[in-house]
Amino acid sequence: MTSSDPTLGAPGSLRLAVIPGDGIGQEVTAEALKVLEAAAPAGVKFEPTRYDLGAERYLATGEVLPDTVLEEIRAHDAILLGAVGGKPGDPNLPPGILERGLLLRLRFELDHYVNLRPSRIFPGVTSPLSEAVLAKGDIDFVVVREGTEGPYTGNGGAIRVGTPAETATEVSLTTAFGVERVVRDAYARAQQRRKKLTLIHKTNVLTYGGAIWTRIVREVGTEFPDVAVDYLHIDAATIFMATDPARFDVIVTDNLFGDIITDLAAAVTGGIGLAASGNVNPDRTAPSMFEPVHGSAPDIAGQQLADPTAAILSASLLLDHLGHADAARTIEDAVIGDLAARAGAEARRTSEVGDAIAVRV
Amino acid sequence: MTSSDPTLGAPGSLRLAVIPGDGIGQEVTAEALKVLEAAAPAGVKFEPTRYDLGAERYLATGEVLPDTVLEEIRAHDAILLGAVGGKPGDPNLPPGILERGLLLRLRFELDHYVNLRPSRIFPGVTSPLSEAVLAKGDIDFVVVREGTEGPYTGNGGAIRVGTPAETATEVSLTTAFGVERVVRDAYARAQQRRKKLTLIHKTNVLTYGGAIWTRIVREVGTEFPDVAVDYLHIDAATIFMATDPARFDVIVTDNLFGDIITDLAAAVTGGIGLAASGNVNPDRTAPSMFEPVHGSAPDIAGQQLADPTAAILSASLLLDHLGHADAARTIEDAVIGDLAARAGAEARRTSEVGDAIAVRV
Ligand SMILES: CC(C)[C@H](C(=O)O)[C@@H](O)C(=O)O
Ligand SMILES: CC(C)[C@H](C(=O)O)[C@@H](O)C(=O)O
Repeated sequence: MTSSDPTLGAPGSLRLAVIPGDGIGQEVTAEALKVLEAAAPAGVKFEPTRYDLGAERYLATGEVLPDTVLEEIRAHDAILLGAVGGKPGDPNLPPGILERGLLLRLRFELDHYVNLRPSRIFPGVTSPLSEAVLAKGDIDFVVVREGTEGPYTGNGGAIRVGTPAETATEVSLTTAFGVERVVRDAYARAQQRRKKLTLIHKTNVLTYGGAIWTRIVREVGTEFPDVAVDYLHIDAATIFMATDPARFDVIVTDNLFGDIITDLAAAVTGGIGLAASGNVNPDRTAPSMFEPVHGSAPDIAGQQLADPTAAILSASLLLDHLGHADAARTIEDAVIGDLAARAGAEARRTSEVGDAIAVRV
Repeated sequence: MTSSDPTLGAPGSLRLAVIPGDGIGQEVTAEALKVLEAAAPAGVKFEPTRYDLGAERYLATGEVLPDTVLEEIRAHDAILLGAVGGKPGDPNLPPGILERGLLLRLRFELDHYVNLRPSRIFPGVTSPLSEAVLAKGDIDFVVVREGTEGPYTGNGGAIRVGTPAETATEVSLTTAFGVERVVRDAYARAQQRRKKLTLIHKTNVLTYGGAIWTRIVREVGTEFPDVAVDYLHIDAATIFMATDPARFDVIVTDNLFGDIITDLAAAVTGGIGLAASGNVNPDRTAPSMFEPVHGSAPDIAGQQLADPTAAILSASLLLDHLGHADAARTIEDAVIGDLAARAGAEARRTSEVGDAIAVRV
């Protein structure tokens, strides 16, 4: 499937499927690519192929993700995605059509079961949390969000639509198979870090799926005796995220709770302008996909107002995943340098931020 | 069903079913009752009946909520609940048994479809948010959480339990009937306040239930043309809750998202030690139930360490619901006075806080 074994970081071509998407997705992806080129390890050449998927293509052609395009994308080493989504409330864009048909379809078809979202307060970044909370300790954790189950499978339906008797269901699916592989990944990451794993769920209400998470975390834990484990209900977890985020090291959680807690995590560590993510297929049976946590923000699109940092940090995760840890760190360091220089400085255009980080790289 | 029509605030007896529950539930309920007695409007007598439901009774007898007890409780004017829940991980207490069998059963059987959770930063209270965030405006909003649908219905199951092939489902149920009545309630509250309603959901993923919420909010909105409406995905809503909670006036949301956002709301407004809630049956076909948002906190139980303020504020909501708005305000004012006096003072025992607030009343 790959032209060279990218896990070895062997010199050669890295084929990138680039999906800038909609709104600010276009602008931030351009900067991520710019920085990626600047950070390319010796002997490595990126071969980007652009795919114009997203709201615009859908509105023009009715196509969301044709099967042939999916198969083309599958033949790449990694995917860089900007953001997808049109104007909220656009009557020609039914809610979920792009999310389910493009973003979630890629995550599911390419088996991105580890949705990786690191959160860290970088020096110079403003947090909405008080000095007292920030003084509790360094905030540096990673959320391992399950990416292929939960209420994201599209399992559900509605009857009597549009009437006063309308009734809808959404089914959250949880399997021991799906939970075990992501829990094992999370333990392994915890072992490489501060050796602390927090399971977040709502086991007192979602008792069936919750029982699987609880059991698997206990069972897989026997393989990682040096990792300390605790548990928080999702509601309680939001409290700790606001009052003591330094307590977290690695969080493992299901698809929906992971969606929610990572946005909050991004907020408390300086905003979704900085939050990167990887949709990772650890088994490497298909390319992994890297994208900022933020959306397409149609309200500020095309004005060079968006912060490309999250997309650039996502490119760093991409390099790391492909075995180029040093190049990945170069990008991260460049971002840290740029962030420190931002305090008090004038706001820059999207491309100026990208240029500045590329220069530091 | 009621001995007098409590909505008229007529002099007479108010029969209260009191369920202190487990852990600190016992301690905080005692203080709530104390303050309630002190605030009793002229001519009103409370007739409390205690029900020893909770983990202790379950562990001793296997009983969670016998049908006969439920029927007795039903014949009251209101219910005051402390908190239920035993030691986390107690092997004799399967997760959810008390939550589903007692707390949620009461909410469902008594049709508590409006789960009301006000959030306000009282003077003198410490927030985990920064000065810059707090300077954006007064934080004073109320969450109207749907209480009888969503993934809380217990609809779901599992097969091959305990094996590597275990598979579980949880079904989230949403009906136009259920959404319409809670949305209408939320609009009416917004109209009495700052005339702003925010719907929180995840309509781009939970598209079937989301379509019901979106449609009903639009349709019912025609009856409230002076109320401005906006929409946030639950993930984005957590960001605003951390970065600009002053933007909210009335939030309406489903059962699960409401559970999550109200704990976060409590955190940013000073902690769940202060967060009150009402499980309200606006049609008054059954008694409403008032309880602090916090849990039973077994780790600090029995030590007079718990803050009874949330339980006391819940008693204020109870009085308000029963038509005694003035008495309700008296409690709220007493709490505000006490909170202002707390800054810098020594920590007090649970009963001392109750005494101090009762004296102010
Ligand atoms: C756009 C949406 C479907 C998506 C999700 O819910 O996973 C987004 O919020 C995210 O976190 O990547
Ligand atoms: C105890 C639990 C079932 C309950 C809920 O999820 O509703 C609690 O968290 C709450 O918010 O009242």
